[in-house]
Amino acid sequence: MQREAFEALDRIDPLAPLRDKFLLPPGVIYLDGNSLGALPRSTAARVSRVIEKEWGEDLITSWNRHDWIAMPQRVGDKIARLIGANAGEVVVAESTSINLFKVLAAALKMRPGRRVILSEKENFPTDLYIAEGLVDLLGQHYTLRLVAADDLEQALGADTAVLMLTQVNFRTGAIHDMAALTAAAQAAGALAIWDLSHSAGVLPVNLDGALADFAIGCGYKYLNGGPGAPAFVYVAARHQGQTPQPLFGWLGHAAPFEFAASYRPAAGIRQHLVGTSSILALAALEEAVDLLLQADLAQLRAKSQALTEAFITLVEARCAGLGLSLATPRDPARRGSQVSFAHEQSYAVMQALIARGVVGDFRAPDLLRFGFSPLYIRYVDVWDAAETLRDVLVTGAWRRPEFQHRAAVT
Amino acid sequence: MQREAFEALDRIDPLAPLRDKFLLPPGVIYLDGNSLGALPRSTAARVSRVIEKEWGEDLITSWNRHDWIAMPQRVGDKIARLIGANAGEVVVAESTSINLFKVLAAALKMRPGRRVILSEKENFPTDLYIAEGLVDLLGQHYTLRLVAADDLEQALGADTAVLMLTQVNFRTGAIHDMAALTAAAQAAGALAIWDLSHSAGVLPVNLDGALADFAIGCGYKYLNGGPGAPAFVYVAARHQGQTPQPLFGWLGHAAPFEFAASYRPAAGIRQHLVGTSSILALAALEEAVDLLLQADLAQLRAKSQALTEAFITLVEARCAGLGLSLATPRDPARRGSQVSFAHEQSYAVMQALIARGVVGDFRAPDLLRFGFSPLYIRYVDVWDAAETLRDVLVTGAWRRPEFQHRAAVT
Repeated sequence: MQREAFEALDRIDPLAPLRDKFLLPPGVIYLDGNSLGALPRSTAARVSRVIEKEWGEDLITSWNRHDWIAMPQRVGDKIARLIGANAGEVVVAESTSINLFKVLAAALKMRPGRRVILSEKENFPTDLYIAEGLVDLLGQHYTLRLVAADDLEQALGADTAVLMLTQVNFRTGAIHDMAALTAAAQAAGALAIWDLSHSAGVLPVNLDGALADFAIGCGYKYLNGGPGAPAFVYVAARHQGQTPQPLFGWLGHAAPFEFAASYRPAAGIRQHLVGTSSILALAALEEAVDLLLQADLAQLRAKSQALTEAFITLVEARCAGLGLSLATPRDPARRGSQVSFAHEQSYAVMQALIARGVVGDFRAPDLLRFGFSPLYIRYVDVWDAAETLRDVLVTGAWRRPEFQHRAAVT
Repeated sequence: MQREAFEALDRIDPLAPLRDKFLLPPGVIYLDGNSLGALPRSTAARVSRVIEKEWGEDLITSWNRHDWIAMPQRVGDKIARLIGANAGEVVVAESTSINLFKVLAAALKMRPGRRVILSEKENFPTDLYIAEGLVDLLGQHYTLRLVAADDLEQALGADTAVLMLTQVNFRTGAIHDMAALTAAAQAAGALAIWDLSHSAGVLPVNLDGALADFAIGCGYKYLNGGPGAPAFVYVAARHQGQTPQPLFGWLGHAAPFEFAASYRPAAGIRQHLVGTSSILALAALEEAVDLLLQADLAQLRAKSQALTEAFITLVEARCAGLGLSLATPRDPARRGSQVSFAHEQSYAVMQALIARGVVGDFRAPDLLRFGFSPLYIRYVDVWDAAETLRDVLVTGAWRRPEFQHRAAVT
């Protein structure tokens, strides 16, 4: 294979025009869009307009005049189209963690007498922390039970209230079979909660088709909503207006502006709103989701698989014997839009790569993680990243002392 | 009194230069800064820089390079200076509601065996909703007990776990005696939580001096952080590293980037962080707090009292017999930076005022509410607002049909 072949793939890529809608720094191959998505070109102007015109000039009247009040639902409805949900099943609010707390607490309440939250050992730690915190708060013999991914179905039982999983593993990129695991959970009488943080915007997700009960996900990874963008929460239509989530907030009240003394839950997805979300942050997220909706999800997935496949092939060919081992499923159907390689000195190797403009990230204990956002990553970037990785390993560039020191954020 | 006298007061106002730091729309007298603070002139440029330079160019490396990771604590330390707290006692995170949930749950856990959350009937409804939701989640005979403000001290008892109050009433502007009520709660063995949403940035608050246990507050009212700005939470130093709040989030972990499988609470105020807050929103809030820190809090309070006093005097003199009755304490020491008048047709009257550029708000069932942010409200604005109110009432302008229809957001 030659670099020219990759340039040729870029020329026929139907998604190539979308890359120009992003501001990407020159000289950087950004393979960390699964941690912080890149900046859409139109975001700064949109946020400036919200600040200067809406907030600055129209002040409080903007809640009506610019329909700020509807933004969490409007952006939620747009995200719904990316994850196989209907309008009215998704709302944007708070963070992934807070949203998980809401649906997990609601799910436990919907399954009285069942005391087990089942998840996998390798789930995203934050999700496990949230479950730990809820168990600690509730007491009453609730437990968080963690098993290996392959043992999940067997572990479902009459005591299982909820199966809580992340669809795409943050370390390895392995994808769970959402429909099969949801069905297994429901067959055992449990509910299924899916964290879509590493799938929304890059894989076709079909929540309604899988009969998922609840889902949550992140706004700042593949959705490109900006650092700390608000997150989303999905509640299947059949569960709405039933058991309310326990963070009773004014925006989740049936009539928020009555300022009634007691809480009356809104009937629909709005019950999952709590406090006021940042309108600046919502505007940035909406701008990014609008851009994503210009892409065809099947094309995104096809390109994502082609990019990750090419990267694995190139790295394994060009870096053979240099201490790397693939940590990501080899079957493209079984992996998300990332490739991880284990290496004994992965932290230093990643720092050396970043110094040469190939930005991925390190995930403890030993992974080099590379995310491929098909909206703005080119085939030629894959070639160049693999060549840079080879060069860093062959030359031992990663041994330089400045690459050994761990920064606050890794 | 003449308008000229008010112009003269503006000429000698030591805070007058700060008004120029805000972008205020021409022709508007904005008396709703207690609902959404006005826009500092420097905010748009700061947020644009965060978007274009930090997010756009430096991408994921900004967590270290631009110290995004420290922003919640850095801005928290700045807010601490406004509310009588020390560095390390305040952090910016989520919304007021979510922060209340955290400290309320922690407080209940710190007082095992006590089952009552005591508050006042007229507390901000959202705060009551959060308490209701927590009680509903916990079951176990927890109750939320609401009494009239004057009956609070008497109602404290051996079953009281927490006294939860808002320092300044959102309807009437009445101020609680924080030190006395905190001491009474603690004498009864309970903990005190203060909501500072209507006091931070406009009154000198002394949390440490009052020996408060916990506090929370809003970023988008007198702090001018922008629509839906993140909120803050205060935990007295003596309680830190003790009972963790139950929303176990990765940013509240002792070592967030270890991605350890189980939660280990951070020792300090950082335990109150959960998910990632919007960096755009944090930057806007920081810009506004920096501006506020240029003002002297005693001067702000003095001007606030002078503005509200002048407004009451003028309205009562000029609108006598026109159906208004004062709902705010007459003693300036007993009220925050707002004045509320009851009127039978307050909704329509407020709409008519807004149509003439005097922007206050309506609070059900019958209040006209006027907030006076001493950073940017002039004495002459008080005169003009009172004259406009008189004119609306004398002419019956509020009777026009377009002022009767209630908008989604009031």
